Amino acid sequence: MNNNVNYHQYKIALQKIADIKYASAVLQWDQETYLPKKGNDARGRQIATLNELAHEKFTNKQLGELMNELILSDKLADREKRNVTLSLEDYHKSKKLPSSFVRKMSETVNKSFHAWVKARHQNSYNIFQQPLQEIIELKKQEADLLGYENHPYNALINDYDKGLTSTILDKLFASLQPKLSLILEKILASQANDNNILRRHFDKNTQWDVGIEILKRMHFDFDVGRQDISEHPFTTNFSSKDVRVTTRVDENDFGNMLWSCIHEGGHALYEQGLPDEEYGLPLGEYCSLSIHESQSRLWENCIGRGLSFWRHNYAFLQEKFPEQFKNKTVEEFYATINKVRPSLIRTEADEVTYHFHVMIRYEIEKLLIEGSINAKDISAYWNEHYKKYLGISVPDDANGCLQDVHWSHGSFGYFPTYSVGSLYAAQFYFAINNSFPNIEELIANGDTLTIWDWLKKNIYKHGRYFNSEELCKLATGRELDPQYFLQYLENKFL
Amino acid sequence: MNNNVNYHQYKIALQKIADIKYASAVLQWDQETYLPKKGNDARGRQIATLNELAHEKFTNKQLGELMNELILSDKLADREKRNVTLSLEDYHKSKKLPSSFVRKMSETVNKSFHAWVKARHQNSYNIFQQPLQEIIELKKQEADLLGYENHPYNALINDYDKGLTSTILDKLFASLQPKLSLILEKILASQANDNNILRRHFDKNTQWDVGIEILKRMHFDFDVGRQDISEHPFTTNFSSKDVRVTTRVDENDFGNMLWSCIHEGGHALYEQGLPDEEYGLPLGEYCSLSIHESQSRLWENCIGRGLSFWRHNYAFLQEKFPEQFKNKTVEEFYATINKVRPSLIRTEADEVTYHFHVMIRYEIEKLLIEGSINAKDISAYWNEHYKKYLGISVPDDANGCLQDVHWSHGSFGYFPTYSVGSLYAAQFYFAINNSFPNIEELIANGDTLTIWDWLKKNIYKHGRYFNSEELCKLATGRELDPQYFLQYLENKFL
Repeated sequence: MNNNVNYHQYKIALQKIADIKYASAVLQWDQETYLPKKGNDARGRQIATLNELAHEKFTNKQLGELMNELILSDKLADREKRNVTLSLEDYHKSKKLPSSFVRKMSETVNKSFHAWVKARHQNSYNIFQQPLQEIIELKKQEADLLGYENHPYNALINDYDKGLTSTILDKLFASLQPKLSLILEKILASQANDNNILRRHFDKNTQWDVGIEILKRMHFDFDVGRQDISEHPFTTNFSSKDVRVTTRVDENDFGNMLWSCIHEGGHALYEQGLPDEEYGLPLGEYCSLSIHESQSRLWENCIGRGLSFWRHNYAFLQEKFPEQFKNKTVEEFYATINKVRPSLIRTEADEVTYHFHVMIRYEIEKLLIEGSINAKDISAYWNEHYKKYLGISVPDDANGCLQDVHWSHGSFGYFPTYSVGSLYAAQFYFAINNSFPNIEELIANGDTLTIWDWLKKNIYKHGRYFNSEELCKLATGRELDPQYFLQYLENKFL
Repeated sequence: MNNNVNYHQYKIALQKIADIKYASAVLQWDQETYLPKKGNDARGRQIATLNELAHEKFTNKQLGELMNELILSDKLADREKRNVTLSLEDYHKSKKLPSSFVRKMSETVNKSFHAWVKARHQNSYNIFQQPLQEIIELKKQEADLLGYENHPYNALINDYDKGLTSTILDKLFASLQPKLSLILEKILASQANDNNILRRHFDKNTQWDVGIEILKRMHFDFDVGRQDISEHPFTTNFSSKDVRVTTRVDENDFGNMLWSCIHEGGHALYEQGLPDEEYGLPLGEYCSLSIHESQSRLWENCIGRGLSFWRHNYAFLQEKFPEQFKNKTVEEFYATINKVRPSLIRTEADEVTYHFHVMIRYEIEKLLIEGSINAKDISAYWNEHYKKYLGISVPDDANGCLQDVHWSHGSFGYFPTYSVGSLYAAQFYFAINNSFPNIEELIANGDTLTIWDWLKKNIYKHGRYFNSEELCKLATGRELDPQYFLQYLENKFL
């Protein structure tokens, strides 16, 4: 057996499967940006067919045998071996799900996504409840098919960050919650009142132009990417040479668009920086969702809500919106964008209270998957815990449990990665500060290249070679430690 | 064997194949509208994989056996039988092309399309020549694989209109050419000089709004379709509930956008009107490219360049462009949009000279496929025949043989359907006039519903049940007769 030929065959097979998956991603991107109103049904079945097909091709027995042979031959170069090893892991996992199940999931997700859009527009949780319950049942079934230790939710979390478990998260959140509450209390006691200068009229087209310019200043490459409008901002990619972000523009809230651009831009830089030559292979993929979120949260918060970044960029905002920012200093702007206050909407939350939003969703997901509660109980649980953790009353479900798209997509286990990602982000930012003690000065002078280079070298280029923990250790010299994040908050807010 | 179960299996299989083909169409649409500059390579391979896959699935032996069984059982309802019969025809044809050939064609087309875009921008035929020659070689190979009578070009024409041959076309064009020359001569002798009132500055955004409104007035349904910008206008669809047209806007030539909208709109109405319940099956597909072009040419010319249409719609143009159309009567507008004069660009040609453009392309294609000339000879042949047929000198290849996208797409045999479609259009329009002698009055009163209804009943609803000739006979009572078209021209221009 010629080993080179075998590896080549493996690569061809994986890349064709990637073609199908990326095609499905194009159809999903189009669904959320440009699809005509009544095109849903056909689109749903087209996506389902592609997903089913990719799954069928990937779980093909011959491909499994080929990969086993390759591993046993032990003649692969290091990166080749890592590719095949990871593909085999994926293969064994995928084998546990029948193609018919994959199709069913895809069809149900399509239905529940559209039910969610409708429910949210009509502010009626009822419309979403039954489709959501169907998704929950399928996710329970998926957990059983995949197998798990301790808790069925672990099977799902594992999809977003290999090795992350509810035991780890329980411990993490249990330790984080009282500390965050204390920090929050202190901030609220000391924080000056202000009026939010971003909540007034900002012209849509000008906002759009600002978003594009900020993405450029972050080094988002429009030759290998683009931005469009969607109801819910997201990042997707169809190769590292075609990475797309979306945003939404609220004419009465400038912050909405601005931080969605920077957040998604952070995701996009990661995808644009992945090794192009590994198209369709594990080493061309991102490490984990937690690391992906670390990239968006690093740009959104550590950089994008930092004073240094705006010392350089605020003049541009003033130029684009002279009326709105007249007589407002950069310090006032900075105070506004870092105002800490319990609020209803996760994506608009400050860096401190954000994690209470995540914890509530995490708890609900765990209870749903273990079967302790059902779709019908979500709204009540949600509202009760917003009162408990954040001290606020939820006026309606549109501002409550209907605000996020994730469950309608069947994404259970995704939310915790936002918090874990924020912790990684703080730790990475600390490491960057260690390497470049003058980093704030550099940023204030308009240099974000230094950070981008660090991320390329320490995060992007590795693809999926390491898992989250290994990557963190390699990049920062230490395992994930929430202390960096808490320290970051104290430095910034207290 | 349960026949219902078999038909159901056949339907499921065909619909999944349609899902893959439509997915490929989405990727192609995106490629021509929104793809980032450097996304080409990955996109090319993704489309190639989907095309290869659809072909593999469709030429699966078991599917062939299933269809044979269904036909032999003779227990199918009439429409079911027609579906299976047509699918079997397609199957036997597809079987002649290996999947590897389909992939190769798809990859080569991608390469040559991008070479063509570049060649056109740089006005350098050299860039396109070699990739085009590769396409030509593949098309010759395709003709050989498919098999043919008399001339290899017939194998390719057959793809666009089953039964149409170079013998028929030779005869048709040989008879049409002197008659058209005579008509042209008479028109040029009698036609008043005018200055083209559409060639001045027309604001882009307002043009766009006009295009959208005209599409609406044609009954294009934006709930099941949309319009976008592309370099070369086209219509595509991903189901009859998702039909998309594209246009281009030239700020210094209003006609460019306007007639592309109406032309593509005619195509789109056909696709939106195909039987939705036959998704993925032959009866859900259009009859032939000739009939498809009859729909675009009917709207573009018989209606869209008619005085009646503008008697109703000109006020709207004047309202949108008060400055440009001030002091211009609808009759002056009508004269401008029907000015006959030999010109360089096919898509901008009048209804008379248009067919000389087609004939030249037709002749070139025939010579290329039979091997009498090669890619390197096209430019000279082109320029010589523009002189001969139209009496004009071609200044450069951008305004000559680089103007059309078709060859770069591997579409050989497509061009003749534009002329044949125009003939069908005139004959259909005559039949509509027969059924509604007051049709011009109706149109002048803003009623295009009557025409749309006639088309739905006589063309759209049949899908692919009949071939072009049968459909024409059913709709007009006679076989295709160029006399209707010549009569139409004489009535209009002489």
